[in-house]
Amino acid sequence: MFYGIKNVNHSIKMLLIRLLNKHDIINQNIFSMFLRRIKFIFSLLIVFSIFSCSTNSTSEDKTLDPLPSWNKGSTKSAIIEFVNDVTNPQSVNFIEVADRIATFDNDGNLWSEQPFYFQLFFAIDMVKKMAPDHPEWKSQEPFKSLLENDMQEFAKFGEHGILEVVMATHAGVTTEEFEIIVQDWLATAKHPRFNKSFTDLVYQPMLELLDYLRANGFKTFIVSGGGIEFMRPWVEEVYGIPKDQVVGSSIKTRFVIEDGKPVIERLPEIDFIDDKEGKPIGINKFIGRKPVFASGNSDGDLAMLQYTASGEGRRFMLYLHHTDEVREWAYDRDSHIGRLNKGLDEAAEKGWTVIDMKNDWKVIYPFELNQK
Amino acid sequence: MFYGIKNVNHSIKMLLIRLLNKHDIINQNIFSMFLRRIKFIFSLLIVFSIFSCSTNSTSEDKTLDPLPSWNKGSTKSAIIEFVNDVTNPQSVNFIEVADRIATFDNDGNLWSEQPFYFQLFFAIDMVKKMAPDHPEWKSQEPFKSLLENDMQEFAKFGEHGILEVVMATHAGVTTEEFEIIVQDWLATAKHPRFNKSFTDLVYQPMLELLDYLRANGFKTFIVSGGGIEFMRPWVEEVYGIPKDQVVGSSIKTRFVIEDGKPVIERLPEIDFIDDKEGKPIGINKFIGRKPVFASGNSDGDLAMLQYTASGEGRRFMLYLHHTDEVREWAYDRDSHIGRLNKGLDEAAEKGWTVIDMKNDWKVIYPFELNQK
Repeated sequence: MFYGIKNVNHSIKMLLIRLLNKHDIINQNIFSMFLRRIKFIFSLLIVFSIFSCSTNSTSEDKTLDPLPSWNKGSTKSAIIEFVNDVTNPQSVNFIEVADRIATFDNDGNLWSEQPFYFQLFFAIDMVKKMAPDHPEWKSQEPFKSLLENDMQEFAKFGEHGILEVVMATHAGVTTEEFEIIVQDWLATAKHPRFNKSFTDLVYQPMLELLDYLRANGFKTFIVSGGGIEFMRPWVEEVYGIPKDQVVGSSIKTRFVIEDGKPVIERLPEIDFIDDKEGKPIGINKFIGRKPVFASGNSDGDLAMLQYTASGEGRRFMLYLHHTDEVREWAYDRDSHIGRLNKGLDEAAEKGWTVIDMKNDWKVIYPFELNQK
Repeated sequence: MFYGIKNVNHSIKMLLIRLLNKHDIINQNIFSMFLRRIKFIFSLLIVFSIFSCSTNSTSEDKTLDPLPSWNKGSTKSAIIEFVNDVTNPQSVNFIEVADRIATFDNDGNLWSEQPFYFQLFFAIDMVKKMAPDHPEWKSQEPFKSLLENDMQEFAKFGEHGILEVVMATHAGVTTEEFEIIVQDWLATAKHPRFNKSFTDLVYQPMLELLDYLRANGFKTFIVSGGGIEFMRPWVEEVYGIPKDQVVGSSIKTRFVIEDGKPVIERLPEIDFIDDKEGKPIGINKFIGRKPVFASGNSDGDLAMLQYTASGEGRRFMLYLHHTDEVREWAYDRDSHIGRLNKGLDEAAEKGWTVIDMKNDWKVIYPFELNQK
């Protein structure tokens, strides 16, 4: 662009000289005076042009606060200092754009996960919706307790119970049908504590962090234990993360021609669990590159953070510590969900950054901004 | 940008009027004449400014040939007409940027695949390199025939033989070690027919097609039966396709802490075969969106093209037909590798575009450009 404007400046000068000389209507002095004025005007014009052309660049944005919902403090400073350092070509810690891979856990890290994973709310609603076609569920656990709204009883069946419910409710349809089912559910379902849509319960400070990283050339990925096809229908709109940048747990599928139309059918069989040691494996499989920035909130994210930390050069490992029982929830070492125990010790030991939700975040959810 | 320039135009006019009036050095006629000239100059300047500001946009590129290595003809016209149509916001066939997913098979589609898959050249070289540590291979098939350079004998073991060789040579190392092994091999290995590096045997017209699609907002992906970790070390540099936009076959891995360092170990066990019906499954798993443009060269790509064709709205299905036995190879219905039989029939029946390599392509490989 700058080259273009220099050329324009030169071309215009030549053109002016030719036009003015050709008609010879004024003497040399008047011409000189005009040329000076016009040069001055062109200088202004160049300044204006540069300004008008560079509105998409980040240069002037740096004077604004890129993380307005984060309180001043060591967490916010650490993030900004890291980004400034690794994007500075003069720094020894400079990271090429292609290597700027940032991975984020989803449940309890980009949106809430209490009183239990939002995907389980979905599965429970599906069980109730599908129950008329499954009379056997009335007497068959873990469906029986769910249909009776007895979550304490349901919890006794543990991971296996959740898995059984997920298999019964997430399979047996095509991928396109499943996407619509998820979208329809999200459009009406409400979280019991806040009476808000589940996608309203995303963290405003994390939305800003995602934007900030992307504005600095990072490619942002979700790496979640949640179902990949449960997340894809909405993450693009809510987080600005494209569907192909979502790594998650999955069930098997098969390709079939149904009434002459090729479809992908969802099968009631686990394909991949993207949790704990599964996270680095999923990152390697889907992304093929070690992240330089990893963000999580539980021991299920520890392997991802360890894997990220093992890379050469500067890296950023970020844990979100749920410390706000008033605005969100407070839980860590003994939580039945999103337990953060080993991770908290390792973060302290290795100097990883830990977000103190209560003190580091001005607001939790985007809807709080409108209430202010 | 346009808003900026309009403002600049207005500001400059006001400034000129103020400057000229203030000094009152010329009469109204001369002023009017000057103002007309200066207006004319500003008009030119605006045109220049728009031109100089928009060097990154595609507007003026359309006057250049985006596919210079493609001969004029129905294939080239069909591609360009499709891209112009679906990127035109006024067209009923307009496709949003987020939906502009283009998938490309690799072997025989972006680079050659004869006399056999290049990954098999790699595996054979690895067998020879690893042979001193495996004295049993001297008498154990399929390794024995490979070590004796008896490819006819090796071929008798079919897919199973290839699989056994791949497992023996692609596993037992970490992902980082494997990446270096692939890079080292590519740096020295030569294709026997051309005595060129294997990455020199990519198709120049397809490189242009990838660039052309990307310049028009398409996200380009590889969807190949080849090993995902065999492709990732070089596709970024060679095709401009990021590592996370590669879908391929894979073996299982596990996450382990080795000497205090977390690594991902490659296991001799198939995880996923990204071929035939596996391709739409891989696309759904890794990309999560149905492509609008799919390009392949064999029956192994047919399911991918069928899946792409099944989407709503305008789609582009492209087959590469190997018809040039002089510059490359000619093969289709009876080929032992890259067989194109059913696909050729279905392309004719459904009106998909088929590249006639011999007649549609001016050059095959990039190195031919330097020879011209």
